[in-house]
Amino acid sequence: MGANREQVLSSQEIFQGRAIKVRVDTVEKLDGRKTTREIVEHDDCVAIVAMDNEENVLLVRQFREAVGKELLEIPAGGIDRGEDAAQAVRRELREETGYLPQKLKRLGGFYSAPGYSTEYLHLYLATELTLSPLEAEDTESIELVRVPLADIPSLIASGKIYDAKSIAGLLSFSLRR
Amino acid sequence: MGANREQVLSSQEIFQGRAIKVRVDTVEKLDGRKTTREIVEHDDCVAIVAMDNEENVLLVRQFREAVGKELLEIPAGGIDRGEDAAQAVRRELREETGYLPQKLKRLGGFYSAPGYSTEYLHLYLATELTLSPLEAEDTESIELVRVPLADIPSLIASGKIYDAKSIAGLLSFSLRR
Repeated sequence: MGANREQVLSSQEIFQGRAIKVRVDTVEKLDGRKTTREIVEHDDCVAIVAMDNEENVLLVRQFREAVGKELLEIPAGGIDRGEDAAQAVRRELREETGYLPQKLKRLGGFYSAPGYSTEYLHLYLATELTLSPLEAEDTESIELVRVPLADIPSLIASGKIYDAKSIAGLLSFSLRR
Repeated sequence: MGANREQVLSSQEIFQGRAIKVRVDTVEKLDGRKTTREIVEHDDCVAIVAMDNEENVLLVRQFREAVGKELLEIPAGGIDRGEDAAQAVRRELREETGYLPQKLKRLGGFYSAPGYSTEYLHLYLATELTLSPLEAEDTESIELVRVPLADIPSLIASGKIYDAKSIAGLLSFSLRR
Protein backbone atom coordinates (compact mmCIF):
# COMPACT_ATOMS: atom_id res chain seq x y z
CA MET A 1 0.00 0.00 0.00
CA GLY A 2 2.89 2.34 0.77
CA ALA A 3 3.95 2.39 -2.89
CA ASN A 4 0.50 3.60 -3.84
CA ARG A 5 0.82 6.90 -2.02
CA GLU A 6 0.91 10.16 -3.87
CA GLN A 7 3.92 12.28 -3.06
CA VAL A 8 3.06 15.68 -1.64
CA LEU A 9 5.35 18.25 -3.21
CA SER A 10 4.02 21.28 -1.38
CA SER A 11 1.09 22.29 0.78
CA GLN A 12 -0.56 25.68 1.06
CA GLU A 13 -2.77 26.72 3.96
CA ILE A 14 -5.85 28.55 2.69
CA PHE A 15 -8.21 28.96 5.62
CA GLN A 16 -8.30 28.26 9.32
CA GLY A 17 -11.83 28.31 10.65
CA ARG A 18 -13.53 27.06 13.78
CA ALA A 19 -14.78 23.81 12.29
CA ILE A 20 -12.70 23.37 9.17
CA LYS A 21 -9.32 24.20 7.73
CA VAL A 22 -8.63 24.22 4.02
CA ARG A 23 -5.32 23.47 2.32
CA VAL A 24 -4.22 22.89 -1.24
CA ASP A 25 -1.61 20.19 -1.77
CA THR A 26 0.44 19.94 -4.91
CA VAL A 27 1.05 16.25 -5.45
CA GLU A 28 2.79 13.95 -7.87
CA LYS A 29 0.19 11.43 -8.92
CA LEU A 30 0.97 7.74 -9.19
CA ASP A 31 1.46 8.17 -12.93
CA GLY A 32 4.09 10.85 -12.33
CA ARG A 33 2.00 13.85 -13.33
CA LYS A 34 1.42 16.78 -11.03
CA THR A 35 -1.91 18.05 -9.84
CA THR A 36 -3.43 19.86 -6.90
CA ARG A 37 -5.75 18.45 -4.23
CA GLU A 38 -8.08 20.77 -2.36
CA ILE A 39 -8.51 19.35 1.08
CA VAL A 40 -10.90 20.20 3.88
CA GLU A 41 -9.43 19.32 7.26
CA HIS A 42 -12.13 18.38 9.73
CA ASP A 43 -11.62 16.71 13.09
CA ASP A 44 -12.92 13.23 13.77
CA CYS A 45 -16.52 13.07 14.91
CA VAL A 46 -18.91 10.63 16.49
CA ALA A 47 -22.22 9.41 15.09
CA ILE A 48 -24.69 7.62 17.30
CA VAL A 49 -27.34 4.97 16.79
CA ALA A 50 -29.26 5.47 20.03
CA MET A 51 -31.98 2.95 20.81
CA ASP A 52 -34.31 2.85 23.80
CA ASN A 53 -35.64 -0.27 25.55
CA GLU A 54 -38.70 -0.30 23.27
CA GLU A 55 -36.48 -0.48 20.16
CA ASN A 56 -37.14 3.09 19.15
CA VAL A 57 -34.25 4.89 17.50
CA LEU A 58 -33.62 8.49 18.61
CA LEU A 59 -33.27 10.79 15.62
CA VAL A 60 -32.82 14.55 15.55
CA ARG A 61 -34.39 17.03 13.21
CA GLN A 62 -32.39 20.21 12.69
CA PHE A 63 -31.80 22.94 10.18
CA ARG A 64 -28.59 22.56 8.20
CA GLU A 65 -27.36 25.85 6.84
CA ALA A 66 -25.02 24.19 4.32
CA VAL A 67 -27.88 22.49 2.51
CA GLY A 68 -30.61 24.99 3.41
CA LYS A 69 -32.94 22.35 4.81
CA GLU A 70 -34.12 20.61 7.92
CA LEU A 71 -32.78 17.07 7.97
CA LEU A 72 -33.70 14.03 10.04
CA GLU A 73 -30.41 12.51 11.18
CA ILE A 74 -28.78 10.33 13.76
CA PRO A 75 -27.16 12.37 16.55
CA ALA A 76 -23.57 13.29 15.76
CA GLY A 77 -20.94 15.82 16.63
CA GLY A 78 -17.34 16.63 17.31
CA ILE A 79 -14.93 15.25 19.85
CA ASP A 80 -13.90 18.03 22.22
CA ARG A 81 -10.33 18.53 23.31
CA GLY A 82 -9.50 16.10 26.10
CA GLU A 83 -12.40 13.78 25.29
CA ASP A 84 -12.22 10.31 23.85
CA ALA A 85 -14.83 9.16 21.36
CA ALA A 86 -16.99 7.45 23.98
CA GLN A 87 -17.07 10.59 26.12
CA ALA A 88 -18.06 12.62 23.08
CA VAL A 89 -20.88 10.19 22.36
CA ARG A 90 -22.26 10.62 25.88
CA ARG A 91 -22.02 14.41 25.78
CA GLU A 92 -23.43 14.81 22.27
CA LEU A 93 -26.30 12.43 22.87
CA ARG A 94 -27.23 14.25 26.04
CA GLU A 95 -27.00 17.67 24.37
CA GLU A 96 -29.03 16.64 21.34
CA THR A 97 -31.61 14.32 22.92
CA GLY A 98 -31.51 14.76 26.69
CA TYR A 99 -30.60 11.11 27.23
CA LEU A 100 -27.47 9.53 28.62
CA PRO A 101 -26.55 5.98 27.57
CA GLN A 102 -25.57 3.42 30.18
CA LYS A 103 -24.16 1.16 27.51
CA LEU A 104 -22.03 1.98 24.49
CA LYS A 105 -20.74 -0.29 21.76
CA ARG A 106 -18.43 0.78 18.98
CA LEU A 107 -19.74 -0.20 15.54
CA GLY A 108 -16.72 0.83 13.48
CA GLY A 109 -16.73 4.03 11.53
CA PHE A 110 -16.29 5.66 8.15
CA TYR A 111 -15.01 8.67 6.25
CA SER A 112 -17.77 11.07 5.27
CA ALA A 113 -16.31 12.42 2.01
CA PRO A 114 -12.81 11.03 1.41
CA GLY A 115 -12.54 12.73 -1.98
CA TYR A 116 -11.85 16.05 -0.27
CA SER A 117 -12.44 15.86 3.50
CA THR A 118 -10.36 14.30 6.25
CA GLU A 119 -13.41 13.79 8.47
CA TYR A 120 -13.79 10.34 10.03
CA LEU A 121 -16.89 9.37 11.99
CA HIS A 122 -16.72 6.89 14.85
CA LEU A 123 -20.02 5.03 14.93
CA TYR A 124 -21.47 3.96 18.28
CA LEU A 125 -24.52 2.08 19.43
CA ALA A 126 -25.95 3.70 22.56
CA THR A 127 -28.49 1.80 24.64
CA GLU A 128 -29.94 1.70 28.17
CA LEU A 129 -30.85 5.37 27.86
CA THR A 130 -31.75 7.37 30.94
CA LEU A 131 -33.39 10.78 30.81
CA SER A 132 -30.84 13.39 31.84
CA PRO A 133 -31.75 16.71 30.21
CA LEU A 134 -29.44 19.70 30.32
CA GLU A 135 -30.57 23.18 31.35
CA ALA A 136 -30.28 23.40 27.66
CA GLU A 137 -29.79 26.71 26.00
CA ASP A 138 -28.20 25.07 23.01
CA THR A 139 -30.72 22.39 22.26
CA GLU A 140 -33.90 24.25 21.41
CA SER A 141 -33.29 24.18 17.69
CA ILE A 142 -32.92 20.39 17.67
CA GLU A 143 -36.09 18.35 17.74
CA LEU A 144 -36.01 14.79 19.06
CA VAL A 145 -37.87 12.27 16.89
CA ARG A 146 -38.41 8.71 18.06
CA VAL A 147 -38.79 6.13 15.31
CA PRO A 148 -39.38 2.40 15.75
CA LEU A 149 -36.32 0.53 14.50
CA ALA A 150 -38.61 -1.49 12.24
CA ASP A 151 -39.64 1.70 10.42
CA ILE A 152 -36.08 2.84 9.64
CA PRO A 153 -35.71 0.93 6.34
CA SER A 154 -38.85 2.50 4.89
CA LEU A 155 -37.79 5.98 6.05
CA ILE A 156 -34.54 5.51 4.17
CA ALA A 157 -36.10 3.90 1.09
CA SER A 158 -38.67 6.69 0.85
CA GLY A 159 -36.02 9.41 1.12
CA LYS A 160 -37.06 10.80 4.52
CA ILE A 161 -33.58 10.15 5.91
CA TYR A 162 -31.09 11.32 3.33
CA ASP A 163 -27.67 12.05 4.65
CA ALA A 164 -24.89 9.52 4.17
CA LYS A 165 -23.87 9.26 7.83
CA SER A 166 -27.39 8.43 8.99
CA ILE A 167 -28.06 5.90 6.24
CA ALA A 168 -24.66 4.26 6.65
CA GLY A 169 -24.92 4.26 10.44
CA LEU A 170 -28.45 2.93 10.69
CA LEU A 171 -28.10 0.29 8.00
CA SER A 172 -24.73 -0.96 9.16
CA PHE A 173 -26.21 -1.28 12.64
CA SER A 174 -29.11 -3.30 11.19
CA LEU A 175 -26.54 -5.42 9.39
CA ARG A 176 -24.77 -6.36 12.60
CA ARG A 177 -27.89 -7.33 14.51
CA MET B 1 -40.34 24.35 7.44
CA GLY B 2 -39.87 27.93 6.22
CA ALA B 3 -40.06 29.25 9.76
CA ASN B 4 -37.21 26.97 10.77
CA ARG B 5 -34.67 28.59 8.49
CA GLU B 6 -31.73 30.49 9.83
CA GLN B 7 -31.48 34.01 8.50
CA VAL B 8 -28.22 34.70 6.67
CA LEU B 9 -27.00 38.15 7.68
CA SER B 10 -23.88 38.19 5.53
CA SER B 11 -21.74 35.84 3.51
CA GLN B 12 -18.00 36.01 2.90
CA GLU B 13 -16.23 34.20 0.08
CA ILE B 14 -13.03 32.60 1.34
CA PHE B 15 -11.74 30.34 -1.43
CA GLN B 16 -12.61 29.42 -4.99
CA GLY B 17 -10.92 26.19 -6.01
CA ARG B 18 -11.42 23.68 -8.80
CA ALA B 19 -13.49 21.24 -6.76
CA ILE B 20 -14.63 23.26 -3.79
CA LYS B 21 -15.48 26.78 -2.76
CA VAL B 22 -15.51 27.93 0.83
CA ARG B 23 -17.66 30.65 2.35
CA VAL B 24 -18.42 31.83 5.85
CA ASP B 25 -22.00 32.85 6.55
CA THR B 26 -22.97 34.96 9.52
CA VAL B 27 -26.43 33.78 10.52
CA GLU B 28 -29.07 34.50 13.08
CA LYS B 29 -29.87 31.21 14.71
CA LEU B 30 -33.43 30.13 15.43
CA ASP B 31 -32.98 31.29 19.02
CA GLY B 32 -32.01 34.77 17.82
CA ARG B 33 -28.30 34.54 18.57
CA LYS B 34 -25.67 35.14 15.92
CA THR B 35 -23.03 32.69 14.84
CA THR B 36 -20.95 31.84 11.80
CA ARG B 37 -21.25 28.80 9.55
CA GLU B 38 -18.23 27.63 7.58
CA ILE B 39 -19.54 26.08 4.41
CA VAL B 40 -17.84 24.04 1.73
CA GLU B 41 -19.61 24.40 -1.61
CA HIS B 42 -19.28 21.27 -3.70
CA ASP B 43 -21.27 20.44 -6.82
CA ASP B 44 -23.67 17.53 -6.88
CA CYS B 45 -22.11 14.18 -7.70
CA VAL B 46 -23.17 10.71 -8.72
CA ALA B 47 -22.47 7.46 -6.89
CA ILE B 48 -22.97 4.15 -8.61
CA VAL B 49 -23.89 0.66 -7.51
CA ALA B 50 -22.79 -1.23 -10.63
CA MET B 51 -23.66 -4.91 -10.82
CA ASP B 52 -22.85 -7.38 -13.56
CA ASN B 53 -25.02 -10.27 -14.73
CA GLU B 54 -23.34 -12.62 -12.25
CA GLU B 55 -24.34 -10.35 -9.34
CA ASN B 56 -20.84 -9.06 -8.78
CA VAL B 57 -20.58 -5.46 -7.66
CA LEU B 58 -17.88 -3.35 -9.30
CA LEU B 59 -15.82 -1.49 -6.69
CA VAL B 60 -12.80 0.72 -7.19
CA ARG B 61 -9.68 0.90 -5.10
CA GLN B 62 -7.89 4.22 -5.20
CA PHE B 63 -5.60 6.41 -3.16
CA ARG B 64 -7.37 9.28 -1.41
CA GLU B 65 -5.03 12.13 -0.62
CA ALA B 66 -7.43 13.71 1.89
CA VAL B 67 -7.32 10.67 4.15
CA GLY B 68 -3.88 9.39 3.13
CA LYS B 69 -5.12 5.90 2.32
CA GLU B 70 -6.29 3.60 -0.42
CA LEU B 71 -10.02 3.04 -0.06
CA LEU B 72 -12.35 0.47 -1.61
CA GLU B 73 -15.40 2.42 -2.78
CA ILE B 74 -18.30 2.42 -5.17
CA PRO B 75 -17.57 4.42 -8.33
CA ALA B 76 -18.49 8.08 -7.98
CA GLY B 77 -17.68 11.44 -9.42
CA GLY B 78 -18.82 14.85 -10.48
CA ILE B 79 -21.43 15.90 -13.00
CA ASP B 80 -19.73 17.81 -15.80
CA ARG B 81 -21.15 21.00 -17.24
CA GLY B 82 -23.89 20.14 -19.71
CA GLU B 83 -24.39 16.63 -18.35
CA ASP B 84 -27.37 15.32 -16.45
CA ALA B 85 -26.86 12.85 -13.64
CA ALA B 86 -27.47 9.78 -15.81
CA GLN B 87 -24.90 10.93 -18.35
CA ALA B 88 -22.40 11.49 -15.55
CA VAL B 89 -23.06 7.97 -14.29
CA ARG B 90 -22.27 6.48 -17.70
CA ARG B 91 -19.11 8.54 -18.15
CA GLU B 92 -17.78 8.02 -14.63
CA LEU B 93 -18.47 4.31 -14.65
CA ARG B 94 -16.68 3.94 -17.96
CA GLU B 95 -13.71 6.01 -16.82
CA GLU B 96 -13.34 4.19 -13.53
CA THR B 97 -14.19 0.61 -14.53
CA GLY B 98 -14.17 0.38 -18.33
CA TYR B 99 -17.82 -0.67 -18.41
CA LEU B 100 -20.87 1.07 -19.80
CA PRO B 101 -24.30 0.31 -18.36
CA GLN B 102 -27.22 -0.45 -20.67
CA LYS B 103 -29.63 0.05 -17.81
CA LEU B 104 -29.75 2.72 -15.12
CA LYS B 105 -32.12 3.13 -12.23
CA ARG B 106 -32.13 6.02 -9.82
CA LEU B 107 -32.03 4.89 -6.18
CA GLY B 108 -32.47 8.28 -4.54
CA GLY B 109 -29.55 10.11 -3.06
CA PHE B 110 -28.08 11.74 0.01
CA TYR B 111 -25.97 14.58 1.35
CA SER B 112 -22.43 13.50 2.20
CA ALA B 113 -21.71 15.87 5.10
CA PRO B 114 -24.60 18.31 5.61
CA GLY B 115 -23.01 19.84 8.69
CA TYR B 116 -20.62 21.80 6.49
CA SER B 117 -20.78 20.65 2.85
CA THR B 118 -23.39 21.32 0.17
CA GLU B 119 -22.51 18.11 -1.69
CA TYR B 120 -25.43 15.91 -2.71
CA LEU B 121 -24.89 12.49 -4.27
CA HIS B 122 -27.36 11.03 -6.74
CA LEU B 123 -27.33 7.26 -6.30
CA TYR B 124 -27.81 5.03 -9.33
CA LEU B 125 -28.01 1.32 -9.95
CA ALA B 126 -26.15 0.42 -13.14
CA THR B 127 -26.71 -3.00 -14.73
CA GLU B 128 -26.36 -4.77 -18.08
CA LEU B 129 -22.72 -3.75 -18.21
CA THR B 130 -20.78 -3.98 -21.46
CA LEU B 131 -17.01 -3.73 -21.68
CA SER B 132 -16.09 -0.42 -23.26
CA PRO B 133 -12.66 0.61 -22.06
CA LEU B 134 -11.21 4.03 -22.76
CA GLU B 135 -7.74 4.58 -24.15
CA ALA B 136 -7.39 5.54 -20.59
CA GLU B 137 -4.60 7.73 -19.46
CA ASP B 138 -6.55 8.73 -16.40
CA THR B 139 -7.58 5.36 -15.10
CA GLU B 140 -4.34 3.63 -14.25
CA SER B 141 -4.41 4.66 -10.62
CA ILE B 142 -7.86 3.15 -10.10
CA GLU B 143 -8.06 -0.59 -9.60
CA LEU B 144 -11.28 -2.42 -10.42
CA VAL B 145 -12.35 -4.94 -7.78
CA ARG B 146 -15.27 -7.29 -8.38
CA VAL B 147 -17.08 -8.48 -5.29
CA PRO B 148 -20.05 -10.86 -5.15
CA LEU B 149 -23.08 -8.94 -3.90
CA ALA B 150 -23.51 -11.56 -1.20
CA ASP B 151 -20.08 -10.66 0.23
CA ILE B 152 -20.81 -6.92 0.55
CA PRO B 153 -22.37 -7.06 4.04
CA SER B 154 -19.34 -8.82 5.50
CA LEU B 155 -16.95 -6.38 3.79
CA ILE B 156 -18.84 -3.53 5.45
CA ALA B 157 -19.19 -5.23 8.83
CA SER B 158 -15.48 -6.05 8.89
CA GLY B 159 -14.49 -2.50 8.03
CA LYS B 160 -13.02 -3.20 4.57
CA ILE B 161 -15.44 -0.70 3.00
CA TYR B 162 -15.43 2.39 5.19
CA ASP B 163 -16.62 5.49 3.49
CA ALA B 164 -20.15 6.74 4.10
CA LYS B 165 -21.19 6.99 0.44
CA SER B 166 -20.24 3.37 -0.31
CA ILE B 167 -21.86 1.96 2.82
CA ALA B 168 -25.01 4.05 2.37
CA GLY B 169 -25.20 3.29 -1.34
CA LEU B 170 -24.60 -0.44 -1.12
CA LEU B 171 -26.86 -1.03 1.87
CA SER B 172 -29.69 1.13 0.62
CA PHE B 173 -29.51 -0.81 -2.65
CA SER B 174 -29.72 -4.09 -0.69
CA LEU B 175 -32.67 -2.63 1.18
CA ARG B 176 -34.62 -2.00 -2.02
CA ARG B 177 -34.06 -5.43 -3.52
